[in-house]
Formats: sequence, C-alpha cells, structure tokens
Amino acid sequence: MKNLLSIDDLTKDQALEILDTAVELSRLSDSSVRKFPTLRGRTVVNLFFEDSTRTRISFEAAAKRLSADVINFSAKGSSLSKGESLKDTALTLQAMGADAVVIRHPASGAAHQLARQEWTKGVVINAGDGTHEHPTQALLDSFTIRRNLRSDQGDLSGLTIAIVGDVLHSRVARSNVLLLQKLGAKVILVAPPTLLPVGVQQWGAQISYSLDDVLANVDAVMMLRVQRERMDDLFFPTEREYSRNFGLNLERINRLKKSAIVMHPGPMNRGLEISADSADSSRSVIVEQVANGVSVRMSVLYLLLGGATSRDLLMTSAGGI
Amino acid sequence: MKNLLSIDDLTKDQALEILDTAVELSRLSDSSVRKFPTLRGRTVVNLFFEDSTRTRISFEAAAKRLSADVINFSAKGSSLSKGESLKDTALTLQAMGADAVVIRHPASGAAHQLARQEWTKGVVINAGDGTHEHPTQALLDSFTIRRNLRSDQGDLSGLTIAIVGDVLHSRVARSNVLLLQKLGAKVILVAPPTLLPVGVQQWGAQISYSLDDVLANVDAVMMLRVQRERMDDLFFPTEREYSRNFGLNLERINRLKKSAIVMHPGPMNRGLEISADSADSSRSVIVEQVANGVSVRMSVLYLLLGGATSRDLLMTSAGGI
Amino acid sequence: MKNLLSIDDLTKDQALEILDTAVELSRLSDSSVRKFPTLRGRTVVNLFFEDSTRTRISFEAAAKRLSADVINFSAKGSSLSKGESLKDTALTLQAMGADAVVIRHPASGAAHQLARQEWTKGVVINAGDGTHEHPTQALLDSFTIRRNLRSDQGDLSGLTIAIVGDVLHSRVARSNVLLLQKLGAKVILVAPPTLLPVGVQQWGAQISYSLDDVLANVDAVMMLRVQRERMDDLFFPTEREYSRNFGLNLERINRLKKSAIVMHPGPMNRGLEISADSADSSRSVIVEQVANGVSVRMSVLYLLLGGATSRDLLMTSAGGI
Repeated sequence: MKNLLSIDDLTKDQALEILDTAVELSRLSDSSVRKFPTLRGRTVVNLFFEDSTRTRISFEAAAKRLSADVINFSAKGSSLSKGESLKDTALTLQAMGADAVVIRHPASGAAHQLARQEWTKGVVINAGDGTHEHPTQALLDSFTIRRNLRSDQGDLSGLTIAIVGDVLHSRVARSNVLLLQKLGAKVILVAPPTLLPVGVQQWGAQISYSLDDVLANVDAVMMLRVQRERMDDLFFPTEREYSRNFGLNLERINRLKKSAIVMHPGPMNRGLEISADSADSSRSVIVEQVANGVSVRMSVLYLLLGGATSRDLLMTSAGGI
Repeated sequence: MKNLLSIDDLTKDQALEILDTAVELSRLSDSSVRKFPTLRGRTVVNLFFEDSTRTRISFEAAAKRLSADVINFSAKGSSLSKGESLKDTALTLQAMGADAVVIRHPASGAAHQLARQEWTKGVVINAGDGTHEHPTQALLDSFTIRRNLRSDQGDLSGLTIAIVGDVLHSRVARSNVLLLQKLGAKVILVAPPTLLPVGVQQWGAQISYSLDDVLANVDAVMMLRVQRERMDDLFFPTEREYSRNFGLNLERINRLKKSAIVMHPGPMNRGLEISADSADSSRSVIVEQVANGVSVRMSVLYLLLGGATSRDLLMTSAGGI
Repeated sequence: MKNLLSIDDLTKDQALEILDTAVELSRLSDSSVRKFPTLRGRTVVNLFFEDSTRTRISFEAAAKRLSADVINFSAKGSSLSKGESLKDTALTLQAMGADAVVIRHPASGAAHQLARQEWTKGVVINAGDGTHEHPTQALLDSFTIRRNLRSDQGDLSGLTIAIVGDVLHSRVARSNVLLLQKLGAKVILVAPPTLLPVGVQQWGAQISYSLDDVLANVDAVMMLRVQRERMDDLFFPTEREYSRNFGLNLERINRLKKSAIVMHPGPMNRGLEISADSADSSRSVIVEQVANGVSVRMSVLYLLLGGATSRDLLMTSAGGI
C-alpha cells in the first residue's frame, strides 16, 4: 500500500490492519505516551483546495503526535490562483521534500492525479475529492462502529448500517458503502429519490425511501450533512419537510435497537438533519468519531510512512517522548 | 485555577503567582535556556474568530518555547461559516486532543461558553471576547508596571495608573481596571463622557474628563487604541479634536513624574492617540510590553497545563533544551 | 554578513560560501540525516505581505529541517490592515523573540527598512521586495547552474546565461543579473524593448530583442514568468505574439547547445512563456530548482543564525536527529 486514494484500493486485510493499528495507537495515547518519535524528520503537507478546518486539524494533530513536521498549504491565494497546474504543484511539493501530501480538492479524481507515478514519489492521502471519496472518514466510521459494537475485534459481519440523507453529493457515503461492505456489513441507503445517484443500484446496498421503515433493523444510523448551499436546487422542497422525513430526532432514536448507535461526520446542522437532543443523546458517538479520526489518521500515516507493521509500533513507542 | 477566562476569577495570590512565574521564565529565557520541555506532547489550539495576528503569534511563540505543539484554527472559512455552533467546535477540539484552547471571539462571553464543563475538559484561555475581557493583556501590563516601578516584587499598592481613551469599547481597559485594583493600584479612567460605559461608576475607579488634569499625579499612563472603524459614529467629532484632548504627545509626557512610564497595548495609531515621538520616547515601555506578553503567556500556559508550582519550574528547566 | 537583503551586499566569497554550504547540506540530506539540530530553540518568522505559498513553504521547510520553530505571519487581515506601520511590526516581532524574519513585501526596499538597526536585532532575509530583489532565488539559480555545469565547484566564469521575458517587473531578473555577473558569468537579457527597464544599459549585461539570435550561444536559458495581470497594459500586444517571439518551445530547445539547461523560477504559465513539453523536457531543471531552493535557504539560515562556518556543519550534523 503506497497511497490511500480510495477504499477500493484496500484489501479487507489492509483495512483491518489500519483499524488494528489505530486501536493500538489510541490505547497507547490513552495511557502514558503523548508523542511517538516514529516520523521525526518527515514532512507532511496538508494541501487543501477546499476549506475544511476540521479535517485539516485532524491530520495535523495526527502527524504532530507522530513527531512529523507539518506544512499547511491552503490553495487559496496560492500559485494555483495564478494558474499553476496540479502537476506543477505536485512536482514542487515533491521537490521540497514532502514525504506525504494530504490533499483535499473539489474535483473528483484530484488525489489520483496527484499520485501519478511521474509526479509524486511521496505518499498521497485523499482527504476528500469532489463527490468521489473520503477514505479516512470511512475508516474512522468503521473504527467507531467496531469499537462500540465489536469490542475492537474482527470485521463488521452481521451488522446493518443505515446511511441517511444526501447520498448523491456525499463522498462520505460513497467511501462508507465501499468499506462497510468490504468489512462484511449490510448497508441501507435512506434518501429521497432525488438525492440518490444514477446507478446506485450497482453499489450493492439496499435502498429505502423511508427512514421510519428501517429504524428497527439497524445497528448504526449514520446521518449525512445537508449542504445548505444546495438548498436552492430542486433536490428537496423545504428544510422542514426534509427534517420531518429524513431528520433524526429522539422519537426516532427510541425506535432503534437498544444497542444501536447514532453517527454523523460533522459539521452538523443541528435542527435540520439531526435534532440537538439526538446529537447529544447517550446513543450518539459523534464526538467519539472525532477522537477516533485522529487515531485512524495516525495509523494511516504510520503505516504509509513508517513502512512498519503494527508489531514494530509497540517497540518504537516504548521510547515514546 | 482551571481556566483563565476573566481577571475576576483570579485571587490576588493567583495573579501574583502568574507574574512571579513569568519573572522566572523571562530570566531563564534571557540567560541560556531557549526552550523548555515542560509541555512536550501537549497540544495548544489557537481558535481565532477575529483577526489578531499579534495576540495569536504571542501565544504561539509562548507555547512553542514550552515545546507544545500548536495548531492554528482561524474561524474564517471554517465549519463555523457552515453554521457549526461553538458547542460543536468545542467538542470537536476536545475530541482531537486539544490540551488548551486559546479563544478570541467577537462576542462577549464566548470564552465562558466554551469553558462550560460539559463541552471542554481541556484548559480554556480567553484571548479577548467582545468588549468584555482580555485577561492576559492585563497581566502583561501589570507585569510591565511591576518590573519598571517595583523591581518585579510584590503588588502595585501605592501606584496610580491612568487609562486613557475609548474605555467604552475596550476589553483591555476592563481587564486592567479589575487587575490593577486587585493588585492595590489606584486607577483613573480618562475619556470623554461618550466613551465611558454606562455604570462605570461601579468599577471603583476615579473618572476624569481631562488628560491634562491627571498627568502630574500618575505613575503610568496607558493609552488605548482608537478604533478608527468607530470614527463614523457619534462617539467623538474629529480625529484632530480627539488627538488634541486625549492624545499623548511630548509636551504632555514632560509633565509626567520623572519615573512615570508610557504604555499602549498595540497596534498603535501613531499620530492619533499617541504621537510618534511619544511612542519612541525613553518613557515608552511599549515594545517591552510585547516581550513581556510572551513571558506572561508562557507563565499562564505553564501554570494551567503544567499543573506545577513555580518551584518545579526551575527543576524541569535545568534540563532545558 | 548579518542580513540577506540584496545580492549587492554579498561579496563573491560570501556568495560562494552560501553555495558551498548548500552543497554540503543537500549531500547530508540525501544520505541519512533528516533533520539538523542547529537551530533548535530559534524562531523564524515568515512575514508575508504578498501571497507566495511556494516561497513561504520553501523557507518553512528549510527552517524546520534545521529544527527551528516557524511562525507564519500573513499580513492580510493583520494589524497592518489596521494601519500599523512596518516599524511597529518589526519592533513587535523583535520583542516576541524572532531570531530571523523572512519578509516578502510588494514595496521595493521594504526588507532594507525592516533591517534598520534600531528596529530589528534579529536577522532579516529578503524573500522578494517589489520589483527590486529576490536574492535567495538568484542563489538557488546559481546553485542549480553550478551543480549542472560545474559539478558544484568554483564560480560560473566562462558561462553565458540568457534571462528571457519581463525583465522590467522582475526582481528575479535583477537579483540574477547581479549574482551571475559577480560569479563571473556573462548575462544576456532577452526581451522586447517595452519590457526592459530604463537604465538597463548600466546593468552590465548584453541586451537582445530576439530569443532566436541568442539560443546557440548560451549555457542556460532562464525563462521569466509572464504576469498575466499586466497583460492589459501596453507592454505587449497578445499572448500569442509574446509566445511566438519570446516563448520557449521544443524547436528552440533543439537549437541550444547539447549541454545547455532550461530554467524557470515558477510558477509557470505552461503554453505562454514556456511550452508544456519544454517544461518537461530532459533539458529542464525546473523541478531541481525547487529542491535546490530548500538547500540554499537552509544554508542562508544556517550561516546567518548559526554563526558558524560550514566546517562546523559537519560536526554538528554528526548528531543529526
């Protein structure tokens, strides 16, 4: 595994190795070790063509805990606005000694382009490309499901996960469908027909137009963010109607299985796709998802850059600083 | 002391402990020690909802000298602009492992909100909230006064400090009035009636409408920044008239006591609230204030995060790097 | 050598020392040493009044590889926009403990102003001031020429370098003319008369209005970036005509000497001043220039802040981390 561009590139074993390593890293971080020397002297560049403070900070925190140097490159006001191509940006970062480039870009496929062999010798990690993929989000979501429902062990077979909302525009949905199925879970996509992509039947997931129909049967319900900037479009009529049909509220939570968990990738629109009391309920693992995000991104950086197995981790971390 | 939200929360002894620790840190920094290992592995997040490069850099330099990792989070173009609440931002930063959040926000009370127990387990430091408070600025000002007029010892009793200008909109004035009085100094607020807040009589400070009247009696004169963006308002007629009545110039400096010092929190409007030659005069300690700001912020971070007394400081710093 | 403001301030020996030190640093970086402890505890501030992600990142990477702390200060939205003078910014950064300030500014002479003795005790490095100078760019260009054509040894005597394009507005051209001639090279400026500055005859370089005339005689051809924002001016008629007369393409490359190299400071306008296939040809050392930029900037920081000779470098780096 040289890059992390898409869930599709991962074998099931590789995905599990990322999760297992993240488990170890989070255990060590919870105990005494505050910082690992693993990536000392390595440079991680956050190359963000879209604002996403949350994802950028998560990668920055992960890289710094592994002692890497982090350089933030916001493409606003950069050479890019002077017309430099992605290719030249890639070659430039490479020449400056970037060991890993974490890229967020509004165009689907940008991370793959960047990773073309002739452009970048370093590692490329896709932090969200257009409506295509956001693999570390899917990994942290599966990590969170496994931690809560499988005690950090094995795969997700036997579990049923509902993904609810604007599947059409969501790279989070796309990456999650791929990974959850790879790990053996059953996925139900819940959305109005206007918010499902053409060809969704080929994704292998079950489809439902009614949230109420599926509640009793799922082990986790993953709410997608409504992108208000699309609200003017014809995708759905009003916020109120969306909320009534596809929003999560306490009444709906009470119809979930006792063990089922509530997830959201953030940032939330409280009161729209999820009510405030749902977000804060005891079923919600939304804050835990954020914490797990750092562990999973540490794991990805560690495995891609450290070139080590998780066995080595314990040994190097013994000298953690 | 868990957070630093307001001068009001500090006892006199706690305030003095911050100053004393800052004295030690500045002494050590002046000698051989360039960097203290105290906060290695800790993460300090600068969460800035308002531009303030000067304050942000001061905290960043302070945190890095204590070996902390620093993550800058400018709320412009962040999830906040996508409608995320302060609560969710707080929970997110907490989950990512922020040990301290330094927050600057245009709304009075934002730091207190952030520090609500259920949101943040880490330390919260108020770096300016609306027109409410800016406690580290007051601490560095008292540090500077004590260094110049009391040889770094004891409290400020027996001293009289004039605070001159736009008291109405100034969180710097508010925090300084609280701290200076707590440390035993007498405060005179000097401003036109339109630039004094309703209820200022309850602040316990003397009030004067004439700068010339108070010059001969004060040990320090603290000029407030005129916020030109309020110039259109009805607060005062013209820059020239403001300058004539409430601006500091060499002629006025000559009427101060020989030992009196001139202060300004920066950034200055040279030629408006303070003349260029006053700012550069031998009485001015304005540049020293900036340097002291780093020491005081190191002290605050050290005491809040290190969980140690200043005695320990000397011991850990023996191994300074 | 206290600052690096202008190529004019450097003796030939000093320029060669910078190049020689950069050679050693790049050799060490290529082998085992990922990070040098030389500047641990020192603070480098990137003070950028103009966007230039590329230059900022290059300095940031260089400083971090020497273990310095780096603080980025983008002057947009800073006190500067509130009317603070460059003087007060300088005094402020100084007081906060900046050991070096790397400044980029749209006004020619800004770096010299900042370096005035009474303002800054630390080191000032000019990262581009108006149309005046960009000395580290010239140093990395000479480094690149020397590496490719002189095996990292000695000066550039006997070589002929063409600098092609908008010389009028280019600080890169100005610094390169000064340095190349100081190192013994012959320089030919190639541009339409409208893009040559008044008084260019005094620069000591040969002048040509035809790229085709000089191709066969040069050892390196350095293409300047066309600043599209000037395209509306009367400087030249159309992009197509500019490209036909002064753009580099494969046909022109084929008329160069076998050993000649193609350079560009970046970011490129592929298809305007240089064709895409020229930029990617085997003659192009454009990507190498970027990598050399980090080595040269490490060298400059090392020599200005380390206060050491390159001999010491080997000794301290033996303990590289």
